[in-house]
Amino acid sequence: MDKQAFSRRDMVQLLGVGSIASAVLPTAACAADQPKRKLGYAIVGLGSYATRQIMPRIKECEFARLTALVSGTPEKLERYGSEYNIPRTHRYSYAEYDRIRDNPDIDLVYVILPNSMHAEYSIRASQAGKHVLCEKPMAVSAAECEAMIAAARKANRKLMIGYRSRFEAHNRHAIELVRSGFAGTPALITAEHGFNAQPNQWRLDKPMSGGGSLMDIGIYSLNAARYLAGEEPAEISAMEYTDRSDPRFRTVEDRIDWQMRFPSGLIANCVSRYTSNHNAYRVTGDKGWVGLEPATSYAGQQMWVRANGKTEQRFVPALPKNQFVGQLDHFAECAMSGREPLVPGEEGLRDLRLIEAIYRSAREHRAVKLA
Amino acid sequence: MDKQAFSRRDMVQLLGVGSIASAVLPTAACAADQPKRKLGYAIVGLGSYATRQIMPRIKECEFARLTALVSGTPEKLERYGSEYNIPRTHRYSYAEYDRIRDNPDIDLVYVILPNSMHAEYSIRASQAGKHVLCEKPMAVSAAECEAMIAAARKANRKLMIGYRSRFEAHNRHAIELVRSGFAGTPALITAEHGFNAQPNQWRLDKPMSGGGSLMDIGIYSLNAARYLAGEEPAEISAMEYTDRSDPRFRTVEDRIDWQMRFPSGLIANCVSRYTSNHNAYRVTGDKGWVGLEPATSYAGQQMWVRANGKTEQRFVPALPKNQFVGQLDHFAECAMSGREPLVPGEEGLRDLRLIEAIYRSAREHRAVKLA
Repeated sequence: MDKQAFSRRDMVQLLGVGSIASAVLPTAACAADQPKRKLGYAIVGLGSYATRQIMPRIKECEFARLTALVSGTPEKLERYGSEYNIPRTHRYSYAEYDRIRDNPDIDLVYVILPNSMHAEYSIRASQAGKHVLCEKPMAVSAAECEAMIAAARKANRKLMIGYRSRFEAHNRHAIELVRSGFAGTPALITAEHGFNAQPNQWRLDKPMSGGGSLMDIGIYSLNAARYLAGEEPAEISAMEYTDRSDPRFRTVEDRIDWQMRFPSGLIANCVSRYTSNHNAYRVTGDKGWVGLEPATSYAGQQMWVRANGKTEQRFVPALPKNQFVGQLDHFAECAMSGREPLVPGEEGLRDLRLIEAIYRSAREHRAVKLA
Repeated sequence: MDKQAFSRRDMVQLLGVGSIASAVLPTAACAADQPKRKLGYAIVGLGSYATRQIMPRIKECEFARLTALVSGTPEKLERYGSEYNIPRTHRYSYAEYDRIRDNPDIDLVYVILPNSMHAEYSIRASQAGKHVLCEKPMAVSAAECEAMIAAARKANRKLMIGYRSRFEAHNRHAIELVRSGFAGTPALITAEHGFNAQPNQWRLDKPMSGGGSLMDIGIYSLNAARYLAGEEPAEISAMEYTDRSDPRFRTVEDRIDWQMRFPSGLIANCVSRYTSNHNAYRVTGDKGWVGLEPATSYAGQQMWVRANGKTEQRFVPALPKNQFVGQLDHFAECAMSGREPLVPGEEGLRDLRLIEAIYRSAREHRAVKLA
């Protein structure tokens, strides 16, 4: 167990410290060489997203640093271990994974594996006493999500899902504008995500991915519709089309679009595709609309709004931290302060329950009412 | 029976005349004062659309002129009869309607009445030997549409539905771009239409309108999805929400959105609203997209396209005739030449069958497969 993390959290709670700034407590271990205490991330899975998007940005973090790597490929451990100055003692194969519990430099584990491995490697990290940040989709079933939440709770550790758009300036501003009533009462959300999937990758192998475009990119439409609506859907209806003669789609779906009716009467029309490019959403109310296109890309978001019969682009100032750094730091702060993450495991579970309902609706050609 | 119209059509057929230009035959009745023969329109129903959009533009027509008015309101007959120089003998109350058969100056009847009256007044016009242009929705049920088609066929007269966007430059160019493969193989169509309905009008009274936003404005989403797809849907799934405490919506629906799956695998997500403004569509394929916003307004359409990763506005040159004049002249040409209209009664019938399927799907919370 990570006693250090425990004691920090307990101290913060004991002191009743609310703000993050004051929650950054100096510790004996790092007070000498670092002005602020930084928690250590182990990255689990050294694929493209980890190595190209996440690892290069950890150095920009205020509250976190990269301290360990986990991979099944020795060459990757060697290459990235060397590049990021990770000592050999802090490089792990999957067989050695459970030994992270004995490494006090690892406070946080970021699971960036194929979807079907999320649950196992998150649960084992929780059991090793680490706080877990897990990529979306949280897992390949709601049942797995529930097990992950239970494991983190039992270990008294945090669990967060990598919904990075919640840390992105345009998305945050869109939510604020919608909540402020800029567009009036929201009546329609359209959310569209898709791209042309490259062949021969784990995402197209259902045992690894748990599903097709919906699990991979459609989840952005789903999650955005929920954070823009600010309420949970009451009914869902989906329609799927997949050309099974396309070798990419032998086991996973290509096109799956769905409608969600929310208790307020808001209806969301969502799109998920593996054969065309889409990255946009729009919230329309009785007074106008707020939209992003692209909406959830790594960078380059653009906001367009309409009010008083006029459509215009709206400049959104950058946040001090980009979405990747914001997410990584937020989770470190939560681990330090004991605060609940903005997008905890329960948020990932809600999406997986809806994903299951979307698949069921498409399969059974009927609407699914949600509890 | 309108013997003149008969003989003109017969002559054209007899002569095997194919082109419209050569089909414009001079007649004794008008050769003196008009360089080209113009057919005469009777406008049935002097509401806002008729008096503000249609009647002022008939004077721009090449092949048609305004020759008669039909209204239940004597003041309107007096006012517009005087304004448009229509002799009293060519002004009709509904009680006098069937007497149009005896007026050789009426070749074409344009029915612009509340939806529930379309079938009756179209059928009576066919029975009076006139060619019938009827506003959309064609009627309030598919059964009524079938009766209208049968009546026109029996009378050997043309029947066309007022889908004016088919005569609008941007819509025509959008269809051409999509067909040319500009966006690749179409995979997704989104089509959204809606506005804030004003209270106290026949459109909100189901016995008059036959339905709510879907009958009135959502039909633009439906029809556009079909003309952009160039195929007919195989399955339809709809979701409705209406605040029945809103006095506008005691008998008709507000929000009704639906998905349509086409045989090619194209899925269309369509929106119909009476409480928010929408007027747009977009066709996305594997190579890019083509979109209009606004798409089906009286004027001011704008086209946006995306190809090779770049989004840009595309200027579409105006057609020699605007959509209103284009529609009015096309129908006159069809009546003269015997050619089938671009949007015949069968086109309106298809929409009504789909509208019935949309209502059924929303009511039964299940997808409806189409024959």
